[in-house]
Amino acid sequence: MLHAKDLKAYIGKLGKAAKEAAEILALTNVDIRNQALLEISSVLDTKRDQILEKNKEDLIQAKKKNISDALIDRLELTDERVNSMISGLRTVSDLPDPVGEITSMKATPSGIKVSKMRVPLGVIGIIYESRPNVTADAAALCIKSGNTCILKGGSESMLSNTIISECLQEGINKVGLPENSVQLINTTDREAVKHLLQLNEFVDVIIPRGGKGLVKLISEESRVPVIKHLDGICHVYIDDEADLQKGIDISFNAKTYRYGICGAMETLLINKEIAEKILPQLCPKFLDVGVELRGCQTTIDFFDMNKASSEDWVTEYLGPILSIKIVDSLEEAISHINKYGSSHSDSIVTENHNKANMFMRSVDSSSVMHNVPTCWADGFEYGLGAEVGISTDKIHARGPVGLEGLTSQKFLVEGNNHLRGD
Amino acid sequence: MLHAKDLKAYIGKLGKAAKEAAEILALTNVDIRNQALLEISSVLDTKRDQILEKNKEDLIQAKKKNISDALIDRLELTDERVNSMISGLRTVSDLPDPVGEITSMKATPSGIKVSKMRVPLGVIGIIYESRPNVTADAAALCIKSGNTCILKGGSESMLSNTIISECLQEGINKVGLPENSVQLINTTDREAVKHLLQLNEFVDVIIPRGGKGLVKLISEESRVPVIKHLDGICHVYIDDEADLQKGIDISFNAKTYRYGICGAMETLLINKEIAEKILPQLCPKFLDVGVELRGCQTTIDFFDMNKASSEDWVTEYLGPILSIKIVDSLEEAISHINKYGSSHSDSIVTENHNKANMFMRSVDSSSVMHNVPTCWADGFEYGLGAEVGISTDKIHARGPVGLEGLTSQKFLVEGNNHLRGD
Repeated sequence: MLHAKDLKAYIGKLGKAAKEAAEILALTNVDIRNQALLEISSVLDTKRDQILEKNKEDLIQAKKKNISDALIDRLELTDERVNSMISGLRTVSDLPDPVGEITSMKATPSGIKVSKMRVPLGVIGIIYESRPNVTADAAALCIKSGNTCILKGGSESMLSNTIISECLQEGINKVGLPENSVQLINTTDREAVKHLLQLNEFVDVIIPRGGKGLVKLISEESRVPVIKHLDGICHVYIDDEADLQKGIDISFNAKTYRYGICGAMETLLINKEIAEKILPQLCPKFLDVGVELRGCQTTIDFFDMNKASSEDWVTEYLGPILSIKIVDSLEEAISHINKYGSSHSDSIVTENHNKANMFMRSVDSSSVMHNVPTCWADGFEYGLGAEVGISTDKIHARGPVGLEGLTSQKFLVEGNNHLRGD
Repeated sequence: MLHAKDLKAYIGKLGKAAKEAAEILALTNVDIRNQALLEISSVLDTKRDQILEKNKEDLIQAKKKNISDALIDRLELTDERVNSMISGLRTVSDLPDPVGEITSMKATPSGIKVSKMRVPLGVIGIIYESRPNVTADAAALCIKSGNTCILKGGSESMLSNTIISECLQEGINKVGLPENSVQLINTTDREAVKHLLQLNEFVDVIIPRGGKGLVKLISEESRVPVIKHLDGICHVYIDDEADLQKGIDISFNAKTYRYGICGAMETLLINKEIAEKILPQLCPKFLDVGVELRGCQTTIDFFDMNKASSEDWVTEYLGPILSIKIVDSLEEAISHINKYGSSHSDSIVTENHNKANMFMRSVDSSSVMHNVPTCWADGFEYGLGAEVGISTDKIHARGPVGLEGLTSQKFLVEGNNHLRGD
């Protein structure tokens, strides 16, 4: 392990190298960036056995440390998962170039011409847990968008990440791009992240990918702007003017499509006028598939279940538990969501379009939905091509973040000796 | 002065009230927001004498404290400055509504329809120095864009800010909007700012307006995202293929249009091929108007002046001083700007369009310019209507920030019982 001073210098060196590489990468044509992605996918394919071997070593060490099964599952690479990294790289190479586009060209009264050009952000720091596939997936999105990246994966995946990042650099090298376009922080010292978060001289944005604890810590400590996703406390509200069958289908799908995704419904709100009709049909469906129900007092009056505590309204279960609340009105539903939700994704089921519009305008979430389940919240499903993450922040990017979220726009100003004050 | 605990509670209360008001303001029609602006302008006009009186009291106290003339000048309100606040409000009321627009509507392969709606950010914290006119100007931009704001002005302007904010609330009240749409932090305790910067539960973005010291401190301490502008170290590069007269006119205008604006040129880069021709013509022009020149050794060989130190390349003079450097090539100019500049605004003077394009693509600044002086960097001049500030950040908004910078886009997802995984 490096001494504190050496560690700081090491992270600083990575930052400087990333920035220098970023200046070169920003000027490249998309063809060479795509070619780099394809070369990387070939290298990963060729080195498949070595990758799996290193991953096995990581797994052996992790198991010795008594690490949870869920973490072991995320850490493990299989032939199938390597295939998925490889096909992921190819998919990203097929996406349209997010940079270079010039828009909003206008001539101003003074005669100067002003337009906007979409450019890479520069250097992106990605901090993630022990999921080695993220090493390739995240780097691919950065390269495609003309950004360089500094990667910091979970310590249990160090050997896997190291060989994958070597493959990335080899592929990048083959097309003549700077290999510092992708750099892995090569230490398990936790202080390394702290130094990275202070590196606003070189790093333009930090993207944490992982659990709430990690993301919260990072966003509190970082001097570099963070694009983050904290909670997914998503709601479905079944209105009194809902088609009841749609209400049942949509809420059931929103919860059970996959329990572990951030777009899964965690709280179901039901208008009191239809509670008596819908609960006896819907609750047994949830119980049949093993979903535990927790209701407000009014809910329990219609269908027996455990009582929800106030903690339930602010909990992201990410598992087969659902809290249910009966509300008096659309307004109460909106106000519950804005108070207890996490600004992620929330849906209304109603046949009344005015109410749907009211809901979509008033609910302060990154995705507001009508007559569809919240589990649709996903960059691919939204047609964004690839997904960098889902942002619950309000500035820069809200909701699923595609490649465009890794770019920004600068102003171009042109004239012919137009002077100010003339 | 409030006790530490009470102060924290007070700021928390402002935050909560601002968020509640924001939920209402976000749903209003632009007509009522415009009407509020016009009502405020009338109230300011009616209460003009009281405003000037309170301002006089602020001035008396400030002068007792031996405060600099520059600060006194910014603090002072005159009839003319009140008129300018009033006309500013009317101008903002005439601008197009930045919220509500629905774009990028598309039908996806799954059948769900996805679009984006532009919405207010929510609650904006504005921290500024002792310039009472900012109280009205900043609040106007927030109201127009459907945001509520919490204002913290410099302590010397407390009495002026208090009466102006009362006028703002009176005007807002008249049209029936919540008066907590605009709130002034009513204490000179410096700790108040610290509490505001921790209020990420209620505040969506912080905009500091003031000197570099203030902005730096805020961006280092804030847990709320910050839209900021640090330095304006702007460059003009005169290329060897420049029209010499344009080079002279543009660099002279870039420096002398106004010394104190952030878009003023601070360093002039000249290609070595034309240095001998241009310096003897240009330097006397600068000396004639009292601009002090500081050159690199090569510059001094062509025209006698003080030698620039390495500190000069990273200094924003905001005054009649100019540093000059001779460079060997376009590449050296670009690399000097990316190394020493502040990512604000930089311009190339050349008749070669390929070189201009190379410069504009490679220079990593919020505004890149061709054959115009950097002093054009300004939201009004760019046709943005009003200017919230000039951001040197890369995420969310770069360069002059208009009303759109106070909004973001959320996703609307619509379907008719489209379920995922079907």
